[in-house]
Formats: sequence, C-alpha cells, structure tokens
Amino acid sequence: MNILIVFAHPEPRSLNGALRDVAVAQLEADGHAIQVSDLYAMNWKAEIDRADFPALGADARLRVALSSGEAYATGTLTDDVVAEQEKLRWADAVILQFPIWWFSMPAILKGWVERVYALGFAYGVGEHSDNRWGDRYGEGVLAGKRAMLIATAGGWPEHYGPRGINGPIDDLLFPINHGILFYPGADVLPPYVVYQADRTNEARFEKLAGEVRERMQTLFTIPPIPYRKQNYGDYQIPTMTLHDEHHTGMAGFAVHHTE
Amino acid sequence: MNILIVFAHPEPRSLNGALRDVAVAQLEADGHAIQVSDLYAMNWKAEIDRADFPALGADARLRVALSSGEAYATGTLTDDVVAEQEKLRWADAVILQFPIWWFSMPAILKGWVERVYALGFAYGVGEHSDNRWGDRYGEGVLAGKRAMLIATAGGWPEHYGPRGINGPIDDLLFPINHGILFYPGADVLPPYVVYQADRTNEARFEKLAGEVRERMQTLFTIPPIPYRKQNYGDYQIPTMTLHDEHHTGMAGFAVHHTE
Repeated sequence: MNILIVFAHPEPRSLNGALRDVAVAQLEADGHAIQVSDLYAMNWKAEIDRADFPALGADARLRVALSSGEAYATGTLTDDVVAEQEKLRWADAVILQFPIWWFSMPAILKGWVERVYALGFAYGVGEHSDNRWGDRYGEGVLAGKRAMLIATAGGWPEHYGPRGINGPIDDLLFPINHGILFYPGADVLPPYVVYQADRTNEARFEKLAGEVRERMQTLFTIPPIPYRKQNYGDYQIPTMTLHDEHHTGMAGFAVHHTE
Repeated sequence: MNILIVFAHPEPRSLNGALRDVAVAQLEADGHAIQVSDLYAMNWKAEIDRADFPALGADARLRVALSSGEAYATGTLTDDVVAEQEKLRWADAVILQFPIWWFSMPAILKGWVERVYALGFAYGVGEHSDNRWGDRYGEGVLAGKRAMLIATAGGWPEHYGPRGINGPIDDLLFPINHGILFYPGADVLPPYVVYQADRTNEARFEKLAGEVRERMQTLFTIPPIPYRKQNYGDYQIPTMTLHDEHHTGMAGFAVHHTE
C-alpha cells in the first residue's frame, strides 16, 4: 500500500524524528511504498496568503475560499501545493506526525492543511440539496483511505484524562481527527500519543518504538473511530444537527460517534 | 486602558478587516490606548525553528522548550518575539481576531503563540510542589488582564450548536480560550463569533458592527468564562485531575467551569 507521512518537527534528532524513522523502517520492511513530507526540511510555507494564488489580480480582493476554488479549478495553485495534493491522492493511508504545542498541531502543519486543502479539493465538493450537504464528513477526496495521528505531548496522561485539567486528549484532537481528516472522507484511526515526551530514556524509547511498529503493522486492520457519516440520515439537513433519536439528550463531540 | 489586538487575516478589505477597524475606532473613541499586531502585514514568521534561537550552537540539538527557556532567560530571543511579549505585558486586554479555518486559528496566529509564548514567559513559570503546579490556568504573565476572541466562521450557527456536526463552538474554541489564554492567567471573555461570514451584506454588516462596538464597550465589565483556577484546591496535584466532589461523574471540557 501507499503511505504518506506528513511530519512537522524542526529537529530530526528529536523523539518525533526517531519515531518517524521507526515507522518508516517498519512500513518499508512490510513492503509498503512511502513518501514523507518533512515540512520543516522542505521549508514549507506556513501561511496562506496572496502568493498562493498567482493568477489573482494585483488589485483584486483576496477571498481565501473563493480564490482557492478558482485556482484549483483553473490549475493555477502553486507547485508545492499541487505536489501535496497528488501525494494525498496517491496515498492509501495518511499519517500526520507532530508534537502537540498549545493543545494543537504546529503552525507549519496547520498551514499545510490551509494551503493544500483547497476549495474544490477538500471542501465545497459535491451536491448541496435536501438530501446531501456536500461530500464531507465521511465522503470526499480521502474516502477509502485511512488516516491517523502520531503525536507527542509534554504533560502527563492524567492531565489529558477525562477530568484532567488540559481536557481529554480525544476532545482536544477532535478538531483534527473529525474536522481535518474525517471531513474530506478518511477513516480515522485512534491516535498514537506519547505523553511526557521530554522524559524518554533508552529503555522507554524501545517500548515506544515497539508500540509504533505495532501501530504501523495494524494500519489497515484496526477499526477506525466510529464517526457518523453526514449524508446517511443521522443529521437534519441543512441545519446539520443530529436527529433527536441518536444520543438523545446528549451534546458535544461524543454525539458524533455512532452508538 | 491598554488594548492589544492580534489580527490574523491576509486581506484588509475582508469582513475581519472591517470589524477590526470598527473595534479600533470604538476603543479609541472611548479613550483607550491601542496596539494592533497585524500579523500578515508584519510578515510575521509563522513557524518556530532554529532561527528563533540565535544563541543556539549550529550543531546543538534543538529542544524547542529548553531552547526557548534559555533564550528567554538570557535575553537572546529575536526582536520580533520580544516586541510581542512587551505588548502583552503592556496590555490590560488582549483580543485575538481571526477567521476560523479548519476549526482552529490560522497558522500564522498559531505560530505567533508558539514563538511568543516562550518557556519562562508563558509556561514553566513558578513553583511545582505538592501545593502548586506552576503559575498556570488562572495565574501567570497574563493574570489580571482580560482576553477575548473575535472570530468568523463560514458555517451556520446550527452547525456549531450543541448537536451540530462541526461540534459546539465553545468546545472547538476551548483549546484556545482555556489552553492559550487562561493558561497564562488571563480572564477569558465569551468569544464574539460571526457565522456565515461570507454572506454579509451592508445591512448585516451594520448589525455586526453594532455588536462589536458593544463588546468593546463592555470589555472590562462583562463576566469572564468561569474557568477553575488550578492552584486553589479544585484539582489533585500532581495528576491535575478535578476532585470527585466537583461535577461528580462528569467528564470533558465542561467540568473545568465552576458549578
């Protein structure tokens, strides 16, 4: 199978860098084809701006979504963005790997999403009607592909527990797992998260490496997070709210899992 | 009072740009001193990397938190970062204004946080003991200051409602409000969010402008979100989990509000 790893850490000698090497080695040993987008090494442009849309007139008002859609439709996106879109189309599985900084992904990776996820490519796709609200949340360009996060955090696992002060890790990662990976259609696997990442000695590293190898070997077999698909009757259209009979009386991220 | 607006939109002629101008005009009319960090206009460097730590040896391994702490302690952070830290110290209120892209802040603003929030400035501050776990979550460099978000979203309000498919807006913004603003001690106000931002005609704009003016006039009077302070007995130390007697049996972001 084809695997894309989008890697966002500035130091190859980091724990993230070492775990990436472990993942790549295991995937290669298992016969997969691999591409790594090492965003820092590529000097990836982090912010979306006018330079992303070379066909936009110098005096034209930049409307990010519209300009993105026009550039995608007319083939005038920049080469670096097109290359990433092609990697996403090529991949059977996409792994985003990063340190959790301030409870989210690094800026450079967020900017990868903003620039690569063009209108017409990752959103604003498909029919909007009484029956469908676009190809999203379970349908879209990543449909049929798997996706997962490999992430490190400085805090303790308890700090990210159900009643931990940072908030539960699954809720903190929901905007990424549901909003960035499931949105364009991927089947999203449970994340692999390393806590207290700065406290990793050699013995612990071997344990973590074993866990990463195991996750790579089960990339195409473990069950994804059971998010609800948008266009299969669970949601009212166009308000896109969950029908009362599902998770009756509940609210929040958890209702978007099937019962 | 002193107000800092950190603004993250690439187009001054955008709805965000127009609402920022409304906010600034109202604050000036009310006699406040204002600084605006217009990140795109400043050509703000979005990604944190080795260049942020000029004193780091060319062959030294970059450890982002440690390098940040050393640079902060020795006064070797870059001038652009120091200038933003000084603005934060100067401010009585901090407003982050941005379009919500992929359910979070733009990359350029995330990178502002990563670079400006140095170790020793915004985290890793204060005593870690049986009684305290650092000056954070209600204490820290922003203590005594107010903070709020002004944000725009493309979707409908219902999509961000309690059972809306995107997830509730307050939960999507929790990593920012709680994890980025409350963490270093600010009193965080309810956000001002404009939905369906791309559907704004003149009549609607006048309504939104009136709402922004009102929020600016109540910046120092409306009650903040009642997040729980970390070091005042609500949490077990060092696991930083909420004591059982608070919101008994509940989990998730909401337990970190007082009852």
